[in-house]
Amino acid sequence: MKSYSQGYVQVYTGDGKGKTTAALGLAIRAIGAGLKVFIAQFLKMGEYSEIKTLKKLSDHITIEQFGRPRFRQGKPLPEDVEAAQKGLEKIKAVMAAGEYDVIILEEANIAVWKGLFTEQDLLDIIDAKPIGMEMVITGRGATAKVIAKADLVTEMKRIKHYYYNGVRGRIGIEK
Amino acid sequence: MKSYSQGYVQVYTGDGKGKTTAALGLAIRAIGAGLKVFIAQFLKMGEYSEIKTLKKLSDHITIEQFGRPRFRQGKPLPEDVEAAQKGLEKIKAVMAAGEYDVIILEEANIAVWKGLFTEQDLLDIIDAKPIGMEMVITGRGATAKVIAKADLVTEMKRIKHYYYNGVRGRIGIEK
Repeated sequence: MKSYSQGYVQVYTGDGKGKTTAALGLAIRAIGAGLKVFIAQFLKMGEYSEIKTLKKLSDHITIEQFGRPRFRQGKPLPEDVEAAQKGLEKIKAVMAAGEYDVIILEEANIAVWKGLFTEQDLLDIIDAKPIGMEMVITGRGATAKVIAKADLVTEMKRIKHYYYNGVRGRIGIEK
Repeated sequence: MKSYSQGYVQVYTGDGKGKTTAALGLAIRAIGAGLKVFIAQFLKMGEYSEIKTLKKLSDHITIEQFGRPRFRQGKPLPEDVEAAQKGLEKIKAVMAAGEYDVIILEEANIAVWKGLFTEQDLLDIIDAKPIGMEMVITGRGATAKVIAKADLVTEMKRIKHYYYNGVRGRIGIEK
């Protein structure tokens, strides 16, 4: 781990487009500086377009997915909770090993909201961040306590969104 | 150009961190889907960390820079205006050629604000966007007319920023 600073906790939340892409862009920047990046994706399964690109840079980046994007009747099953818990364990192990410079917890705020793990679980993860590691947490609905613990918080606010004009899920733009 | 949709105009503005990284993340996603991306950077000079990464993917991405990030006494010199105008011409040429699927105009809102080109220049560029091309405009201070013309606008709102605690410009995180 190249600890060039103490490392901070960044949160990207809000209802606008740009949270996941901001985290990805940060990963790209970090890789360019020779840093190593671990991305844990909650509530995502499958090979999104960005993963195809990032795999080409695989010596400096690791991506792991921990759970399905949607639950039957909107409620998580025990297997969904299990997948997310596995994610938390993995994140703790990654932080303890100290091999990575940046760790990105994609949709972790949503995971709390959906009950896949508790707010306290996420706060514990933040507290366990080693000095020198940068942590990035994404997902709408960041709780007040998560915001309080973060060093940087950007709210991506939807001013206008074409989603409401019937555009959604284009390969290469939204996924 | 793989025109799988009519193509939209996305604007990322506001005072929070995440505008440039969101555009970069979108570029990564687009490349992963086999799309071609052109990035025009205004008010940026030099090899930022992200450029080092993106150059590894150079068969699908082109980055060009059009001007210095800072002006003496905060005012642009004729050479700064000239560089930005050259950028506008290049963007028009890229759009006319139709070779790229996504065009990113980095800090174009700032360029308007700094007087490197006019709001009307930027509106003309938006109007000249060919069908099937996605356009992404970043920079704080997007004008009301630019927002009116856009299909998607996210305001990156600063809720908290460690910049104000004395952290700035870390290689791999901010640049």
